[in-house]
Amino acid sequence: MPTDAQQACFEAGIKFGSLYHQFAGTPVSPRSTRSLETAIAESIENQPFCESVTVAIDDDAVAADIDHENGYTELSGHLMEVEMRIAYDSVTVRTRMAMEDGYPLMKLVEVVDGRDPDGDVPADTDATN
Amino acid sequence: MPTDAQQACFEAGIKFGSLYHQFAGTPVSPRSTRSLETAIAESIENQPFCESVTVAIDDDAVAADIDHENGYTELSGHLMEVEMRIAYDSVTVRTRMAMEDGYPLMKLVEVVDGRDPDGDVPADTDATN
Amino acid sequence: MPTDAQQACFEAGIKFGSLYHQFAGTPVSPRSTRSLETAIAESIENQPFCESVTVAIDDDAVAADIDHENGYTELSGHLMEVEMRIAYDSVTVRTRMAMEDGYPLMKLVEVVDGRDPDGDVPADTDATN
Amino acid sequence: MPTDAQQACFEAGIKFGSLYHQFAGTPVSPRSTRSLETAIAESIENQPFCESVTVAIDDDAVAADIDHENGYTELSGHLMEVEMRIAYDSVTVRTRMAMEDGYPLMKLVEVVDGRDPDGDVPADTDATN
Repeated sequence: MPTDAQQACFEAGIKFGSLYHQFAGTPVSPRSTRSLETAIAESIENQPFCESVTVAIDDDAVAADIDHENGYTELSGHLMEVEMRIAYDSVTVRTRMAMEDGYPLMKLVEVVDGRDPDGDVPADTDATN
Repeated sequence: MPTDAQQACFEAGIKFGSLYHQFAGTPVSPRSTRSLETAIAESIENQPFCESVTVAIDDDAVAADIDHENGYTELSGHLMEVEMRIAYDSVTVRTRMAMEDGYPLMKLVEVVDGRDPDGDVPADTDATN
Repeated sequence: MPTDAQQACFEAGIKFGSLYHQFAGTPVSPRSTRSLETAIAESIENQPFCESVTVAIDDDAVAADIDHENGYTELSGHLMEVEMRIAYDSVTVRTRMAMEDGYPLMKLVEVVDGRDPDGDVPADTDATN
Repeated sequence: MPTDAQQACFEAGIKFGSLYHQFAGTPVSPRSTRSLETAIAESIENQPFCESVTVAIDDDAVAADIDHENGYTELSGHLMEVEMRIAYDSVTVRTRMAMEDGYPLMKLVEVVDGRDPDGDVPADTDATN
């Protein structure tokens, strides 16, 4: 049987894949970044176990990506940063997507099991196994 | 050579296909309908020749479509009505997606050439404003 | 009332927008280009009035677009050429997406009304079959 | 630090969310199911850590879902079953999406750490290879 922590990480991954492949390709310009950020966050927050989503689309990167006369580009990983918090039973998972070495990377930031008697989980006594 | 009116209708179709296939499948619930409407409209308005887009997601239909414990459904044609106005040179096209016989239908509502003195709509009483 | 030719152009645009926004963002590498071409074509050919779709994904362009260790990229307009034939009543429309000035452009190539005795293409030498 | 097993589960979730939200909404009919299955599997197998993907679209369910004259429907979770195997370092994760209580559910089936001598599955009878 998968553990609660493993289930929580699986759910966190689902949200990230969903977010990326639902919204990548959306036409975007500096004048539509705010509404798109809000819609993405509120949409994914509908999914089960998803506590919070924040999306920050980089207006300067969007503007720089617009390379032709039409005045817009398509949403892609290098134009946004995303943070999510997933809760599955007693486990909370934090995830983040940001640029790393020129490539948008989805990462597990932290996996915390709130039932653990050793508390908030100091880095040197990782309770997440 | 395609006429300006034909080009305008082609552009109108592109916007409709884009809107539908970019956003269909987006997780949606009654608490996220307004942000999704705004993001869809502002996103598609970025595309060339697209003068205006209005999206109305039906909260009651969304609520009725939620048939399991998770509390959300996926955006689909039967949950929204869309109107668009496309302008290509002197031609203005109005389009609309709405339910017809239980199926969401994308329709050309009106094609008006502002330069055409013999057109259905005289230039000085342009019905497209 | 929109003409048949205008309806045909609207339908042609819908197919193009659908194709692009359904499949843009799909993970692709040189070893998966053929299956993706086939699936895109067969999928869009399901849509009404769509007679034929051909999709050619450029393996060299895909390979050149892979700029990190993961070995794949995301499908985008600059990686493929698309041709479609739409038939609406007596009107046949040919469309094409290809790179132009560094940007993937969707174009109406030809609009032919088979019933039109004064058209560019006489019905008995219909170039659209 | 997340464990390898947690990373593997996160990666497995990403693939599932990607697959679903990239391809849900694709026009599909019984005559295009095979090409779509192949393209989905080969596409997602491009993603990192993804060892294998099998997709089975249910032709009868697709046919039953076609409720209007156009002769196609849109791909959705209730029309397909998906199995994936993800490998992250020494950990192998098996996942599956299938209908459960009328709703398509993505599940972790098995998480096996090949290095773990005390694990559920002894390394020398590892069912996951």
